[in-house]
This record gives sequence, structure tokens and C-alpha cells, in this order.
Amino acid sequence: MAAIKYHLIKKDSKNKARLGILETPHGIIETPVFMPVGTQATVKSMTPEELKEIGATIILSNTYHLYLRPGHKIIEKAGGLHKFMNWDRAILTDSGGFQVFSLNSLRRITEDGVEFRSHIDGSRHFFTPEKVIEIQNALGSDIMMSFDECAPYPADYDYVKKSMELTIKWAERGKRAHKNTEKQALFGIVQGGTYEDLRKECAQRLVDMDFPGYSIGGLSVGEPKNVMYDIVDLTTEYLPEDKPRYLMGVGSPDDLIEGVIRGVDMFDCVLPTRIARNGTVFTSKGKLIVRDAPYAEDFSPLDEECDCYTCRNYSRAYIRHLFKANEILAARLATLHNLYFLIKLMKKIREAIRQDQLLEFKKEFFKKYYGNKEEY
Amino acid sequence: MAAIKYHLIKKDSKNKARLGILETPHGIIETPVFMPVGTQATVKSMTPEELKEIGATIILSNTYHLYLRPGHKIIEKAGGLHKFMNWDRAILTDSGGFQVFSLNSLRRITEDGVEFRSHIDGSRHFFTPEKVIEIQNALGSDIMMSFDECAPYPADYDYVKKSMELTIKWAERGKRAHKNTEKQALFGIVQGGTYEDLRKECAQRLVDMDFPGYSIGGLSVGEPKNVMYDIVDLTTEYLPEDKPRYLMGVGSPDDLIEGVIRGVDMFDCVLPTRIARNGTVFTSKGKLIVRDAPYAEDFSPLDEECDCYTCRNYSRAYIRHLFKANEILAARLATLHNLYFLIKLMKKIREAIRQDQLLEFKKEFFKKYYGNKEEY
Repeated sequence: MAAIKYHLIKKDSKNKARLGILETPHGIIETPVFMPVGTQATVKSMTPEELKEIGATIILSNTYHLYLRPGHKIIEKAGGLHKFMNWDRAILTDSGGFQVFSLNSLRRITEDGVEFRSHIDGSRHFFTPEKVIEIQNALGSDIMMSFDECAPYPADYDYVKKSMELTIKWAERGKRAHKNTEKQALFGIVQGGTYEDLRKECAQRLVDMDFPGYSIGGLSVGEPKNVMYDIVDLTTEYLPEDKPRYLMGVGSPDDLIEGVIRGVDMFDCVLPTRIARNGTVFTSKGKLIVRDAPYAEDFSPLDEECDCYTCRNYSRAYIRHLFKANEILAARLATLHNLYFLIKLMKKIREAIRQDQLLEFKKEFFKKYYGNKEEY
Repeated sequence: MAAIKYHLIKKDSKNKARLGILETPHGIIETPVFMPVGTQATVKSMTPEELKEIGATIILSNTYHLYLRPGHKIIEKAGGLHKFMNWDRAILTDSGGFQVFSLNSLRRITEDGVEFRSHIDGSRHFFTPEKVIEIQNALGSDIMMSFDECAPYPADYDYVKKSMELTIKWAERGKRAHKNTEKQALFGIVQGGTYEDLRKECAQRLVDMDFPGYSIGGLSVGEPKNVMYDIVDLTTEYLPEDKPRYLMGVGSPDDLIEGVIRGVDMFDCVLPTRIARNGTVFTSKGKLIVRDAPYAEDFSPLDEECDCYTCRNYSRAYIRHLFKANEILAARLATLHNLYFLIKLMKKIREAIRQDQLLEFKKEFFKKYYGNKEEY
């Protein structure tokens, strides 16, 4: 039996948005879904109970980071990542590819894999497609990623083509190495940069290999937004209807909506948690830098329309004070709010799809979020 | 009507320990009690709900810090400190005296008050006994402290005597300045260093002024523990039975037990929260530095005997990982555990007093806490 099962519930009649249910060994996920990022076996500043309370059904964790610290063997001994971090809902792990390729000066790519140095202590390591499967098997995530090469932007055609070929070969090797298919689903990752024919070819060849789900990688790495949207739109054309699609590393409110409209089911991004820790929060009227002086005596909540724990109990003035005073509670309250904002946005998106109203919802949301600006 | 009311429920027949109930405008407090410290209008890393869940009935906040940031006027506009920080149980505020006198090079003492520079931006400020009452009135704490001079240790007799005289004068001035006596109780602070006659005189003269409660200040500032215990023992002899006694800034497990035995009802200390953030936790078998390497693969809880949220859900290995990875959740889990440990210790102490068993409890507790060491 397969580890996960995707049920397509309904399609919006006016665009490619899909309402679905994803069954995993750790619970049911309504899609489209936003996955909070828990890089080091913790969604920064949050407890698992708080994540559940705001409606998170799946989180992402990073293979590269956990491999280096505390080490996947320790997590395996603890009984797996779920038990180690006290999270009994679904977990998706990435392959470490994106992180390893981000270590520009610290890595060397061969056909066999990537040699890199730890950002923590400079020690040498070697990731192969088989190794990252072994690590993810030890972690016990519900959804795993194939090892891929994420080409930079911009990159010339030949480089991206070669990189895509490598990614496909590595996907094959990873698939062969993955034994625990009944408990863990391995996704293939579509690469191909901003070249339409490469994206199409990569998608088709991965689909031929029959993965239980497909990721769209290598986007939101510097290309213009309309280019990203076009590539997503094109890619989902070649992905099967009965498998989930995951757009990696994307999670601003506008990108979530635009991604769903183009047929994406799953998203993750460090944005909401990272900007929260710096004192920036989402509101129904756009982003707000609560650290700023104008909020010193503003006793209203972060967002008048929000009913999260933070907005029910604390004022902008208090949260600003906590940020100015470098208090940990500042990060907690802002993080909780930002994650709730995105999770609730996804809920509204799902409801809109159910009503065939996603395009109308988008218009209303953007109007309020960006104010009266002509362009957004 | 007075803001607070102390009911002496029972005395341990074999020592000076007292079981009591303290009624405040924000709830009932069972004494002896440990008060977590929320210096900047937040108990570092914790939410009010978490404090309630671990049984905190009163917290302490710092006048000096809140005056400087965000400013007591802003907190007053927010509707007072309780509302500002979302804490509806009791709050005790200190007078700022201890902080101001700790700013060695930054302050100048006169008969009228103390000029000091902000540790945040170097700006000049002047605290008088009246000013600190005005600030605490704006904050709206349930229990306020008189402005006092906390003499350093060691200090010669003449200095400490002069300092004690100033503290008494300032207590008188503060008492006159305090208008909101029905909602806020002002304590007098006994000073006198380690000189028995000065402690006695200070206590007697303050008691003559009839405060609703008395603090014992200027201890745990470097003097040997037995000296502190003797001074506490002597001071409580001169304090009335029908008023609460508060030993300022003291809160290690041994000092709590020894303080209670000498007739103290209230304690506060940054120790449990501060060491927690550095990776040190209390356990029934003594302190444990969970950051240390031996715990990397230790999947047992911080304390086998503890039933706090942290110990029910997380292993030493996980918490160590969080500390090594500089994750916020590390501070949260350790802080919650340490505060729970002390609050539960006070509960056990109260139960022991009820049974006339406090000395036996002390013996058992120390035996386990310090192991088989002859001396503790």
C-alpha cells in the first residue's frame, strides 16, 4: 500500500485550482495547504500544541540541518522525528539539495553527488541521492524529497539542461534506494529553470517514473514573479491530476493565491516565521512593521480582523514594546499570528474553490491587502 | 478598605514557617509563595496562560525597567500593567531602588533621591520616593515597594546606618505620596545590611509606621548564606504576625526552604528563568546542565519525577539539541520546567507546614537534591 493518497474533491470551474484531501500516515491534510517550516526539528518559537491550535496539519523540516545537528542517527534512536519533536501530525522533509547548493564556496558537484562543508563546523560531508534517502528514512517523514540540483537564476540553457538531467538521474537512484514506501512517500522534483521545454521534459520524464507526488523546485530564486507564475502554470499542465503538487519555498500571500490558481496543492516558506521574528506581520490590510514608532501607543490588535491568540489578547503597543526590549515573547506572538494568517488564508482559498469563487476572492483580498494601488 | 489582607492559617509547630492566604485585588495567593520575575512586563519566554497552568498566582515586575521602556505613562494609557501584559492575577512591583543602586558609575545619591543614567540610552533621570510611587500607581500593581537604598556587601556600620535612616525617611515620604491605598498595598523595606541592631531598629520603626506588608531587602548580595539566614531569622522576630513578609531577590531551592523556616511568606528571583535560558535546569536530584554532551542521546525527561509539560513531552536529547541549535523553544521548555519546579516546591512546602513536617521535608529534599554530600 502507498504511504499517501490524494483525493481530488473538486476543481474550480474558472481556473486550475484544486480542492483535495491528502491522506498520510500522520493524518488527513486538506489541500491546498501551507506548511510551516521547522528547519531544526522545531518551528521557531512555537510548540506543537500551538501549531495544532492554529490549524497546521503538516510541517516541513530540513534534512541538511538535521543530518548535521543533532544527526539523523540520534533522531532515529529517539524513535523518529515525530517522536523526537513531539509532533504527531504529518512531516515533509526536503532533500537537502537546496541547502547544499546554497553553500556556494563550500561545495563540489559530481555525477555521483555533492561534497560540501558544514556551515556549523566546516567538516566535510558527501550527499548522494541514496544518502539523502537513507537520512530521510531515518527521520521517518511522511513525505520525502528526491535529491535534486537547484540551478541558480539566471543560468544559461545548457547549464540548466545538464542540471535537469542530473536531477532526473538522481530521482531514479533515490527511488531505487527508497525501501520504506508504505510509510513514506517520495516525491520527484521538477527542475528546468525558466525554460519551458526543460520544465515540460522534466515533468514528463518524472511522471513516467510514477512518483506519489511532484514538487516544483528552483523557483522564487530571483526570477520575476510573472515568470514564476508562467512556469508553474506550464508545469502543472504535465502533472497527473491524481497526485499532489508542491511548489517549494513559496509562501507570500500573493504567491499562495497565484500558485493555487495554477493548480498547486502544497506550499512552504520561511517568510512568515522569519519576518515575524524581525517584527513584521501580515494583516488584512498588508504588511505592518510593528517595531516601528507609530505603534508605541497603538492599543489595537495587529489585525482588527484576526481572531488568533495574539490578536485576541495583545496590542500593537505591547508587542512593539516586547520587540524593542528583545523579549522572546515578541517572536512567539508575531510568529503565531503570521502562521495563523497564512493557514487561515488557505482555508479561505479552499472555501472559495468550493464556491467556484477563487478569482473573486483573489480580487477582494488583493484590493484590501494592497490598498488602492493600481499595480500589485 | 485595605488593598490586601493576610490570613495566617497555621504555623508549623517546630519552626517559624507560616501557612497563609493573601487576598489581593487580583486573586487569592497561598503563601509561602514563589513569584516568577517578569522584568519587562513579560516573564521571559512565557505567556500568561502558561504561568497560570504551572500555578503562578503572582508575578513580579520591575519599576525601573518599565519606567524607561515602554514608559509608565504608556502602560497607564493601556489600562495598567495587568491589561497591557494580559495578566489578570496579582502583580508586585519593586521600587527601582535595587536597579538604580546597581548602576554604580551611573548614579548620584542625595537626600532627596537618586540621579541616574538609563542603561538603554544614557539619558538622565531622577527617582525620588514620591516619583517611584507615582510610577507604581500608574502601573497599577497590587503590591508596591517603597524606595529604598540597598547597601552593598560588605559595607561598614556607619554607611549602613546612614543608608537605613535614608530608607526609613524615604518609606515615610512614599507612604504619604501613595493615594491609591484601596487598590494597591505599599510595603516597607527592612534594610540594615548584616548588622543585627540595625535590622532590628529598621524593622521596628517601619512596623510603627504600619505598612500592609514588609520586605526584607539587601540580602543575597554576596554575604555568606548562614549570615543571610541569621539576619532573616532575626528580622522576622520584629515583624507582625498579621502581615506578609517578603524576602527580596531570593529563590534557590535551599534558600526558599530556609527562608520559609525562618518565617518568610513571599520570594522572587530571576535565577530559575535566567539559568533556564542558559541550559541549566532544576531536578529532584540537583541541577543539571542539559546543554552538556552526555545528554545528546539521553531520551529521558529532564526530571523523572516531574510532571510538567516539558517533562511529559520532551527528552533531554531534544532539549539539548534545541540549545545547541539556539532555538527559542529551548528557553521556553527549560523556563517552564524551572518555574514549575519552584512553584511545586512551594506547594510541597505548604503541605509540609500543614502536616507539621517541614523540617523532615527539608531533610528528605536536601538528601536527594545534594546526593550523599555531607555538607550542603
